[in-house]
Amino acid sequence: MPEPLILVSNDDGIDSNGIYVLAMEMMKLGEVFVVAPDRQQSAVGHALTVSKPLRISKYQRIDIKNGFAINGTPADCVKLAISRILHRKPDLVVSGINHGQNTSVNMLYSGTVSAATEGMLVGIPSMAISLSSYDLNSDMSASGIYSYRIAKELLENKMPLGTFINVNIPNLEIGKIKGMRITKQSNSSWDDAYEKRIDPFGKEYYWFSGVYNTNDNNPESDDIAVTEGFVSITPVHYNLTNFDAIDKLKSIFDSD
Amino acid sequence: MPEPLILVSNDDGIDSNGIYVLAMEMMKLGEVFVVAPDRQQSAVGHALTVSKPLRISKYQRIDIKNGFAINGTPADCVKLAISRILHRKPDLVVSGINHGQNTSVNMLYSGTVSAATEGMLVGIPSMAISLSSYDLNSDMSASGIYSYRIAKELLENKMPLGTFINVNIPNLEIGKIKGMRITKQSNSSWDDAYEKRIDPFGKEYYWFSGVYNTNDNNPESDDIAVTEGFVSITPVHYNLTNFDAIDKLKSIFDSD
Repeated sequence: MPEPLILVSNDDGIDSNGIYVLAMEMMKLGEVFVVAPDRQQSAVGHALTVSKPLRISKYQRIDIKNGFAINGTPADCVKLAISRILHRKPDLVVSGINHGQNTSVNMLYSGTVSAATEGMLVGIPSMAISLSSYDLNSDMSASGIYSYRIAKELLENKMPLGTFINVNIPNLEIGKIKGMRITKQSNSSWDDAYEKRIDPFGKEYYWFSGVYNTNDNNPESDDIAVTEGFVSITPVHYNLTNFDAIDKLKSIFDSD
Repeated sequence: MPEPLILVSNDDGIDSNGIYVLAMEMMKLGEVFVVAPDRQQSAVGHALTVSKPLRISKYQRIDIKNGFAINGTPADCVKLAISRILHRKPDLVVSGINHGQNTSVNMLYSGTVSAATEGMLVGIPSMAISLSSYDLNSDMSASGIYSYRIAKELLENKMPLGTFINVNIPNLEIGKIKGMRITKQSNSSWDDAYEKRIDPFGKEYYWFSGVYNTNDNNPESDDIAVTEGFVSITPVHYNLTNFDAIDKLKSIFDSD
């Protein structure tokens, strides 16, 4: 069997600490290509660049030989890497290690998750990995160890078609992490708020200042697993149809 | 009962023809606020602006009195409108009419859909509406008529919690549209491709040039309904957990 080909991306940008730790771990498992945004792209969601040209710049950093920075989003990076940079379809797409938790509804806003989604959409085993800390200097060694362990399993075990895994790691030393837990996306939510400020010219502007509410106490949920010190592993699909609502809608719209 | 309060947004920008047609129709049903991006935001997905300040500019256009343009994404517009612009929580969030179909996997990339998702996330009946034509001068009168009919039903009939509806309208005159069909998201996909070009300075750049494949022949799917001349109505949720994969993952990771 040829050496596995692993595509590494993220949304914090190719210079971030998280992607470096992840790439180093993936090199123990196969040939690694790092293709990532040339700058911070947090909260870009599943954006795709269609109205401006994309550029690919060669990027080198210590042991990362196959590095490419792109002036686009995480989804752009995965698509462009597979179409134009890699010499064959990769065996695994990994995205992260994100500086900040991507649980519950935050998956919708996450560029890290969108990169794994793109891998899944073209039939490649994929995972997103996030550390539960926004501190850019967080110790990522435990996250690295779990990234390796989980990626190894993904290379050896087929996931169901159309499914990728979303991993969230508590911000703890390796010895304090209690293990892994398979979870569901929790029903947490944001209480949206915007802080109003006045600029030096007397004009109003607004900053998003919402508060996140973990209002799901299910221990099988991603938020609670992380809070309790477990690595959370959620199987994710993008079948967005609410089949339970089909009959109700048929009765309302009396269609066909 | 007070007059319904309706929030109208989109991703094509507040100047587009589609949002104007939609706002005019919604005014027949209640008090309308139009809060939309100040410029084209297609394919932004569910992006949220967190690293720069947002500005709200008053916008007026013929009969649209309560118009506000924001230097952000569709998701920003809905959040900021509800937090800071509207005098109370709206009874309905409508997003569109988008110039271009938002079926199947395209929902992931769609700013139009993300605005409806934001409405749903805070418990408001919501819908996204898209016309199956990228021509900015398309006749939107049939789309307007269906937007009105469907919005009226949404105001009168509660949807299941956590569900919004995604509407796609064929590019046909009203007399040629065969009716409405309740559908599921289809399994179509993109064959990704990037066209390589050389700029005047001799440097390479890339344009996304993927081809969309409608490889789902189910007449109950959104793509096929539109192709067959029906208005497609899909109930959408964001429960992304693939529960069918939980046991498999538990066996692999032997957790807890």
